[in-house]
Amino acid sequence: MSTQRSFFRTNIAEMEGYIPGEQPQSGGYTKLNTNENPYPPSPNILDGLRKACTEDLRLYPDPGALSLRAKLSSVFGPSPEHFIVGNGSDELLTIIIRSFAGEGDKIAYAYPTYGYYQPLIEVQGAQAVVVDYPDDFSLPSALSETNARVTFLVNPNAPSGTLVSTSEIAEVAAKVRGILVVDEAYVDFSEGGCINLIQDFDNVVVVRTMSKSFSLAGMRIGFACASPELIAGMWKVKEHYNLNRLSLVAAEAALEDIDSMRKNAERICTTRTRLTEDLRALGFFVWDSAANFVLARSPNAPAENLYNALRERKILVRYFNQPRLDDCLRISIGTDAEIDVFTEALQEILADPS
Amino acid sequence: MSTQRSFFRTNIAEMEGYIPGEQPQSGGYTKLNTNENPYPPSPNILDGLRKACTEDLRLYPDPGALSLRAKLSSVFGPSPEHFIVGNGSDELLTIIIRSFAGEGDKIAYAYPTYGYYQPLIEVQGAQAVVVDYPDDFSLPSALSETNARVTFLVNPNAPSGTLVSTSEIAEVAAKVRGILVVDEAYVDFSEGGCINLIQDFDNVVVVRTMSKSFSLAGMRIGFACASPELIAGMWKVKEHYNLNRLSLVAAEAALEDIDSMRKNAERICTTRTRLTEDLRALGFFVWDSAANFVLARSPNAPAENLYNALRERKILVRYFNQPRLDDCLRISIGTDAEIDVFTEALQEILADPS
Repeated sequence: MSTQRSFFRTNIAEMEGYIPGEQPQSGGYTKLNTNENPYPPSPNILDGLRKACTEDLRLYPDPGALSLRAKLSSVFGPSPEHFIVGNGSDELLTIIIRSFAGEGDKIAYAYPTYGYYQPLIEVQGAQAVVVDYPDDFSLPSALSETNARVTFLVNPNAPSGTLVSTSEIAEVAAKVRGILVVDEAYVDFSEGGCINLIQDFDNVVVVRTMSKSFSLAGMRIGFACASPELIAGMWKVKEHYNLNRLSLVAAEAALEDIDSMRKNAERICTTRTRLTEDLRALGFFVWDSAANFVLARSPNAPAENLYNALRERKILVRYFNQPRLDDCLRISIGTDAEIDVFTEALQEILADPS
Repeated sequence: MSTQRSFFRTNIAEMEGYIPGEQPQSGGYTKLNTNENPYPPSPNILDGLRKACTEDLRLYPDPGALSLRAKLSSVFGPSPEHFIVGNGSDELLTIIIRSFAGEGDKIAYAYPTYGYYQPLIEVQGAQAVVVDYPDDFSLPSALSETNARVTFLVNPNAPSGTLVSTSEIAEVAAKVRGILVVDEAYVDFSEGGCINLIQDFDNVVVVRTMSKSFSLAGMRIGFACASPELIAGMWKVKEHYNLNRLSLVAAEAALEDIDSMRKNAERICTTRTRLTEDLRALGFFVWDSAANFVLARSPNAPAENLYNALRERKILVRYFNQPRLDDCLRISIGTDAEIDVFTEALQEILADPS
């Protein structure tokens, strides 16, 4: 037996794996690092789930997700054949790449943005075309001029929280040669939303998740909306039983109680305003956020030191050790009490940086 | 807007999607078509799931699946870094292909076997090398001589149910140039099992599922066992949060009650013997099955007619309209009562084929 043989494709052997935000398995943390919702999911969801824990779990789920797609249609408008569901929106990003871009094909995105696109592109062996956002995170015109097979645009963007208008996105959709993916993971915390664009553009795919606004990160539920032609082709790439029976139940129950989600989103937006003001009062530069987190540039103290000092106090925020972000912290919006814990700790740390 | 633009990769545009077995959303069927377990999952699993339906579902699952992998280690032997978990074993098959075979690379399997390999290969844009099984489903020597990057071997095979010995599989592992995947979806209904081979072969990946023997098809839980080097590379390809919180809970609870699974598997094997004898008495050729289904070649009546006549009686079995299988039915092993319903209906149909 030779342990030296390498069986991996070159792109896989050479790439780094994606490192998700820390998910501590022990308690006691104020967890403001992975944009989870601090409020519980609707009681209707939890009740529905408990009732679904029956011997029917021995049976496969509906591969067509027909009932869920009918509910998505009734909530969002387009008919059910405009929807595909995913094991989290991350699976949908993979499905999109595999549907539209092969090895060596160009996939574009603007930087800084969601860090998972780059490893997804590398896994596919595709070619990343990275355009820089300006410091105000307005849309760079170069993003429309890459000739990429797929262009990713997160709106509101992560980790900046900034929102661009639907009319600006429509201009990008009209200009790009290939598919435009509008990743709306955080849209429920904003006034935005591009689902209507799919009626006018045959190249737009809007991706959403129930992880954030619906408080269901633990259930892995995403969905995408596009023309029936795009959805039908993406369906060939999807694992047939990709949503398990309980995720289907949770997703349907979530759509039946949109009000509960909206109320939580409103509370989060109120807390976001307060946190933004407090951070600015402490000298941070904070981009205007339309998401359930804020990106804050440290006035002078190195952000990594702040991150570590917070972590010592069992407060987790996100620090990105990468260009243009290494002087920033991204803070997920928690409850008011959690944000108080954070800002008080931050004040202490800034007052005594030793 | 032009609706004529095609954005899809050529391989995606040209391929057919996989058609899974029918999952009727209304009741009243005797469902013997997709190899589900007729017995409920362990009550411990259902209890554990109900208790886990809490507000913690707002939090992401553990991307490392550390607790589950520790349990897999304690049950199966190899240390936790030998294991990766999947959203069903189907996701693991995708991860394996994407890790080891790029566009145009060869992927081999023997036919007839699990029908999902072919579309998975087409999605990747890889090149399928298909070797024929002989009629007795013994291992074709040509399968070891394809120079493929990945070779798939289902054992017990589907849809034949036939088992080849671990020593024969070791010979294949020694001969193939690339990765040998032993897909053991049905192994708990047999005397087989190749996990020990990973100690001797750096190119073997053993894939298992909890869908069949553990009665958890609805929860989508698979796992694979291989050298830590192979697992570490495959980990880069895996969606980071691929198992949701409830699937992790179900999987751990399942491993804590292996006895319950084994008892159900024994009952199924007893029923399988009876069904095999009954079908042979009716003139069918039935391969010796080591799985939770049997493949039965019809003596004279066209198998598709039998399938349709059974379906009219609300009895679902699997009919494959493809070479070498179109004179056969595959019948999943149900409860004794379900199998009685099936054989009585079959007798009636054969007695009066009009």
